[in-house]
Amino acid sequence: MAKPVVPEEKRRRRRPTRGGTVLSERLIVEAALRLLREHGSSGLSARRLGLALDCDPSTLYRYFRGMDEVILAIGDALIGQALTGWSPTGRWRDDLRALGLRIHAAYTAHPQAAVLTTSRVTGRPNELAADETVLSVLRGAGLPPPLEVRVYHAFIDQTLAFAALDAASLALPNAALLAEEEVWRSTYARLPSATHPHVAEVAPLLAAEMVGSAYPAALELLLDGVTLRVPFYGTGNRALP
Amino acid sequence: MAKPVVPEEKRRRRRPTRGGTVLSERLIVEAALRLLREHGSSGLSARRLGLALDCDPSTLYRYFRGMDEVILAIGDALIGQALTGWSPTGRWRDDLRALGLRIHAAYTAHPQAAVLTTSRVTGRPNELAADETVLSVLRGAGLPPPLEVRVYHAFIDQTLAFAALDAASLALPNAALLAEEEVWRSTYARLPSATHPHVAEVAPLLAAEMVGSAYPAALELLLDGVTLRVPFYGTGNRALP
Repeated sequence: MAKPVVPEEKRRRRRPTRGGTVLSERLIVEAALRLLREHGSSGLSARRLGLALDCDPSTLYRYFRGMDEVILAIGDALIGQALTGWSPTGRWRDDLRALGLRIHAAYTAHPQAAVLTTSRVTGRPNELAADETVLSVLRGAGLPPPLEVRVYHAFIDQTLAFAALDAASLALPNAALLAEEEVWRSTYARLPSATHPHVAEVAPLLAAEMVGSAYPAALELLLDGVTLRVPFYGTGNRALP
Repeated sequence: MAKPVVPEEKRRRRRPTRGGTVLSERLIVEAALRLLREHGSSGLSARRLGLALDCDPSTLYRYFRGMDEVILAIGDALIGQALTGWSPTGRWRDDLRALGLRIHAAYTAHPQAAVLTTSRVTGRPNELAADETVLSVLRGAGLPPPLEVRVYHAFIDQTLAFAALDAASLALPNAALLAEEEVWRSTYARLPSATHPHVAEVAPLLAAEMVGSAYPAALELLLDGVTLRVPFYGTGNRALP
């Protein structure tokens, strides 16, 4: 894990918390995930974490330099969950699809945590392992390195971007989320074809479509674009902006 | 604009603010955008808006039901900026690309506002106009309606998702943003090829690639996927998940 603030030797000499638990990065991250789910994306604080773990908030600084480092560790834990138990098939397109869906699912399972972490670069072990994995799958597609790196960036950021967008919806208060879904059934469904002919024509389809995630479809379209650039299969080396 | 809380007649009878300005939805949204830039995504309040506009905060409720409605109006203003001055060429792929880049640019020009608004469905006039425009462009591609709506969802959510992700980076405190860019030049650049061979091999390319936005590349890959589904040009009617 990340370089500890306190040398390992000193950390081993620490005493259990008042509740008798021996703290660890993992326990702190798990408690933080519970707090975020309960109190929302802005509800994480050292005070609340201390209460949840039955320890003095200052004890947390033996494990993390501050709350921002806790947030980075949460992000890394979610990436770790995404890849746990996965192994490649050797078919780059299937593997890339599986990785994308797993990462998206791991973040959207923790919407309040995802809102804080999807846009962060942590440099932590699980993130590094995930990047190595995605690059190794892309290497299997046979793209030249500059294109491989550009596609890597588009793929991983599309995954995280949809995770961020979908998590932000899921993290809305329930009433606000229902109100937004209602907009598709009311405002959009009632638009006159005189002013909005194209919306009016497909309004029932929109009402059914827009309440789910577009990530699986967007992922498939992106994979098509990558396929077109694979040597011998597509046209190869087609430039990307 | 949205249905006014106070009938138009009564609103016309309102007096100017202490500063002599006659308020409008537009002035309130402009002041809110300035406050967000100055104080960050969590820095918007009726009190601050009142101070900025030199009016009593309660006056704002003549125009908006509450701060959440102000946020929706900000989102709608950004979409409006994106489409202002744009006209279609009639070539669906060029038009879709231009719309995506414009919407992404309008949001990332106001990162703190984008963080609050990219995931929201407003049902407001500019949003409705943008949706009508995107659907009319897609209609030009000749997709059958169910596929048109699925592609519409993937396209618009990809645009908003990247806007959300890129805005969240841009809205970070400057020091945090620089620290993240440094991760690509330090942690990633120093990974040993024994443990992370693929990262190690392309580390210099990653350091150059990862500090920019992947949206233009991801958009192009998605447009490729759409092209494959256009009748007579691609294979037509290829299913999407």
